Amino acid sequence: MITFSCPDRTGIVARIAGFLADAGAWIVEAAYHADAEQNWFFTRQVVRADSVPFDADELRSRFAEVADEFGPDATWRVTDTGVKKRAVLLVTREPHCLHDLLGRVSAGELPVELTAVIGNHETLQPVVAAHGVPFHHVPFPGPREERRESLKLEAFEELRKLVDEQQPDAIVLARFMQVLPAHLCEQWAGRAINIHHSFLPSFAGARPYHQAHARGVKLIGATCHYVTADLDAGPIIEQDVIRVDHADTASDMVRRGRDIERLVLSRGLRWHLEDRVLVHGNKTVVLR
Amino acid sequence: MITFSCPDRTGIVARIAGFLADAGAWIVEAAYHADAEQNWFFTRQVVRADSVPFDADELRSRFAEVADEFGPDATWRVTDTGVKKRAVLLVTREPHCLHDLLGRVSAGELPVELTAVIGNHETLQPVVAAHGVPFHHVPFPGPREERRESLKLEAFEELRKLVDEQQPDAIVLARFMQVLPAHLCEQWAGRAINIHHSFLPSFAGARPYHQAHARGVKLIGATCHYVTADLDAGPIIEQDVIRVDHADTASDMVRRGRDIERLVLSRGLRWHLEDRVLVHGNKTVVLR
Amino acid sequence: MITFSCPDRTGIVARIAGFLADAGAWIVEAAYHADAEQNWFFTRQVVRADSVPFDADELRSRFAEVADEFGPDATWRVTDTGVKKRAVLLVTREPHCLHDLLGRVSAGELPVELTAVIGNHETLQPVVAAHGVPFHHVPFPGPREERRESLKLEAFEELRKLVDEQQPDAIVLARFMQVLPAHLCEQWAGRAINIHHSFLPSFAGARPYHQAHARGVKLIGATCHYVTADLDAGPIIEQDVIRVDHADTASDMVRRGRDIERLVLSRGLRWHLEDRVLVHGNKTVVLR
Amino acid sequence: MITFSCPDRTGIVARIAGFLADAGAWIVEAAYHADAEQNWFFTRQVVRADSVPFDADELRSRFAEVADEFGPDATWRVTDTGVKKRAVLLVTREPHCLHDLLGRVSAGELPVELTAVIGNHETLQPVVAAHGVPFHHVPFPGPREERRESLKLEAFEELRKLVDEQQPDAIVLARFMQVLPAHLCEQWAGRAINIHHSFLPSFAGARPYHQAHARGVKLIGATCHYVTADLDAGPIIEQDVIRVDHADTASDMVRRGRDIERLVLSRGLRWHLEDRVLVHGNKTVVLR
Repeated sequence: MITFSCPDRTGIVARIAGFLADAGAWIVEAAYHADAEQNWFFTRQVVRADSVPFDADELRSRFAEVADEFGPDATWRVTDTGVKKRAVLLVTREPHCLHDLLGRVSAGELPVELTAVIGNHETLQPVVAAHGVPFHHVPFPGPREERRESLKLEAFEELRKLVDEQQPDAIVLARFMQVLPAHLCEQWAGRAINIHHSFLPSFAGARPYHQAHARGVKLIGATCHYVTADLDAGPIIEQDVIRVDHADTASDMVRRGRDIERLVLSRGLRWHLEDRVLVHGNKTVVLR
Repeated sequence: MITFSCPDRTGIVARIAGFLADAGAWIVEAAYHADAEQNWFFTRQVVRADSVPFDADELRSRFAEVADEFGPDATWRVTDTGVKKRAVLLVTREPHCLHDLLGRVSAGELPVELTAVIGNHETLQPVVAAHGVPFHHVPFPGPREERRESLKLEAFEELRKLVDEQQPDAIVLARFMQVLPAHLCEQWAGRAINIHHSFLPSFAGARPYHQAHARGVKLIGATCHYVTADLDAGPIIEQDVIRVDHADTASDMVRRGRDIERLVLSRGLRWHLEDRVLVHGNKTVVLR
Repeated sequence: MITFSCPDRTGIVARIAGFLADAGAWIVEAAYHADAEQNWFFTRQVVRADSVPFDADELRSRFAEVADEFGPDATWRVTDTGVKKRAVLLVTREPHCLHDLLGRVSAGELPVELTAVIGNHETLQPVVAAHGVPFHHVPFPGPREERRESLKLEAFEELRKLVDEQQPDAIVLARFMQVLPAHLCEQWAGRAINIHHSFLPSFAGARPYHQAHARGVKLIGATCHYVTADLDAGPIIEQDVIRVDHADTASDMVRRGRDIERLVLSRGLRWHLEDRVLVHGNKTVVLR
Repeated sequence: MITFSCPDRTGIVARIAGFLADAGAWIVEAAYHADAEQNWFFTRQVVRADSVPFDADELRSRFAEVADEFGPDATWRVTDTGVKKRAVLLVTREPHCLHDLLGRVSAGELPVELTAVIGNHETLQPVVAAHGVPFHHVPFPGPREERRESLKLEAFEELRKLVDEQQPDAIVLARFMQVLPAHLCEQWAGRAINIHHSFLPSFAGARPYHQAHARGVKLIGATCHYVTADLDAGPIIEQDVIRVDHADTASDMVRRGRDIERLVLSRGLRWHLEDRVLVHGNKTVVLR
């Protein structure tokens, strides 16, 4: 599969399609987007592996020459869809997103291998173990602990090592509830995915359902986005909402919102894993 | 029809239902809500007029005695659903909400008499005339006009007179695009209804679709709310959203958002006209 | 909690509310519905246990006298919300609804005790065991097996015994894929809940997603309904849909439909467990 | 703009994109779909007129040669998006879809010229006139009239003449309520668009909201489809639904369903006018 983006001009599709036709590639799925405002071009092409007389590495090196013609701003990636992507989940005590992802993976619904789950509490260890996935406990300092900041940095350093060992394609903050330090946001840019329990940009930060309840909104939502150093402000991958009314307490919203968190996270993660999400500036192009 | 709210305690339903049963009233629709957090009780009762041996005025004076028993914080209203509510629309040049409301009223879908449309431009006069509704033109000063503020106050005073002459049950800002001065917000509290073209509290203020486009959200919405002196922050009556994606430009969002503005405004207005919306603090209870 | 329905007439609310007020009951939640067409009245009342000076049994026997006044067609139930409802799940090999319900129960989201899972295959035994729920395997004859019908009856008899031992409030066919015989439908009427993977009445019967794909619909859905002897035609509790398009194959629909099956089943089951669903004829009144 | 479909094989995109690149065409929008099951390829390409050094006719004749290479099953169309499409509306007495389309066209929301409205009653003449669109009255025989069938054929013949005079790109049955005879379905195939007030295939035929009410469904919908001789069974362009509940009478469904009919018809019509809808067998590919 090829994803490619560059400043827009004429002839890009012809060049890429010509390249693929010359290689005899059978295109299974192709999506294009031209952003007229930003004058930027995006594409994603899925070709049948057995239609190409060489492997992904060879395709990669041949395509590199094509990509070069489109200048230094062109960004691209060739991936072998036959190789399963790898994901690490970060969790705390909230089980619903974890349960949902474990269930989907074990049902074969999500094309990913969960190589590790890392929790700052041990609460979720048993269910992770039941699914045969390694669980790592990295304790974080409590809110009133002495030397909190330095302990936290140490914890994050331990976390980082555990994550990086896995060489994950996705680092999923499945209701992790800890704010990643800026250097990790940068290092994991485009791979760290968060689920925020509000329809951003409304109700960023803490206790969004309580904020929503106080404001009296008639819909609550969830947002799946890439993590950046700017809290809850990274590129949005997917959002959705459900209807609430005056009879829903803040606790009802917490409970009912889980349904939408699960869906939004699993959809956003799937699209990320399928290389459908191309980031440009602070926005995403999701090619379906 | 009776709407009633008061601090919660035991026996309220029994008292009201007993009162109605003694009057022989056949209850067609009844809704109750008890807000445990605020300890407040809300109800709306629709009775068949022909089941009660007296008229709305008599029902009103009899119910006043019942309501008195629940203390000074009880608020209530008895209305005769046989008498059509009256509405005034405020418009500028944007036609879609106006067209929609005129169409609904002429199709008998909305239980209201449109007694006047007031525009700060004359653009929409012809279609209003075609529906046989009086149109009034009240010009507002342009953004760079001299003595802008005092001219604006004069225009609002003329507007106020025109509106108040109609004794309307609803004053609908159907994409009016002028910020009501605080004294009118207060005077028309609970009757002035606005449609804001975003999913509030996101993107309050000007050009919300452009804000939404810049942020890269995956859903856009509209909010129908009571107007208060605090811009776009009044009690929310109804909200809804539609899905957008990276291919939607800000102009596409403007166009597509109209579909949701029309729906949200017409639903919110209907519930207001049917006395389903009870305001408590800065939130609404919508009894359906 | 009290649910009550009877032929409509004046004074019902007054009688019930008066009864509760006399008992000093604090009404936490009350919903009423009068069906003008069928001339039938429905109500659901939740009272705070500590506001009543006697227990659920005493409330039941006192309320029986009230109910008697409304004639032989009145149906009612008094339940103690402090006593957890019990459910049995019937499954085959499809894991997604099972995973979802187990996850919800273990997260405390669903007010129910899963007392047993019964499968006609052993595939799902391990995950059920991991949640500490007893699993029973009742093998069913294959499609080409000799003496298929009589073996099937025997299997259903074994199933019936296992289910009835649990005295369940809900018997959930969580993608069970076997058609219940008429005598079990009757015996478990109002307790057996099925999830059908289409927006009924479209695509009843086998392979609904493939039917939907063949017809080219733009939305697919799921339906949670009470089981009756008439296949996929029982009273509907809840339905929902998601958008699909030409790019979705039948397999994509199968996968994507699971999201909506999970939601619809869990919502329908919750409402059933909370005694919100009153059946009248072949339709439901869901009091929220 | 070019739409093109043919049996799938390798090199199609390369050939078309190469052709456009050679012509210097700037591709503004491009969508592709390969249906693996049917082995069929579909594409829609929008190019900037000012980027091509010749007009639509010349593009058409040049593209014809390209299309020929893909065999006799290839179907294609080159249209000049600078030329406004033409539509004729067929109506009876129901005003809501007509009001909605007139409002959208006059607000510049729909890229179409309404060249005529034809009604079998005169009810809607005034509002059509107010929008400056010619209205033609073609009376149809009542249900108990003598010689009903032959009168009906005569009426349809008059209708056909009026429609064909307009050479319309779209013939919209905006709640027309008369079943088109088979020969007109055939003659107008791919141009006659109907809005059916149910979520097809559920509730085809007469009084779908009453059917929906009787079945107790929890969502009602509308379907926009191409008209074929098989009643309510043509290729579906767009569908949507809204939630209803036990409190909605059949009349409420009729009223509330109008909101969804308006949306679904206007969306389906827009996509048709923008040449986004490619029909293959009894299904549509909607390229967005």
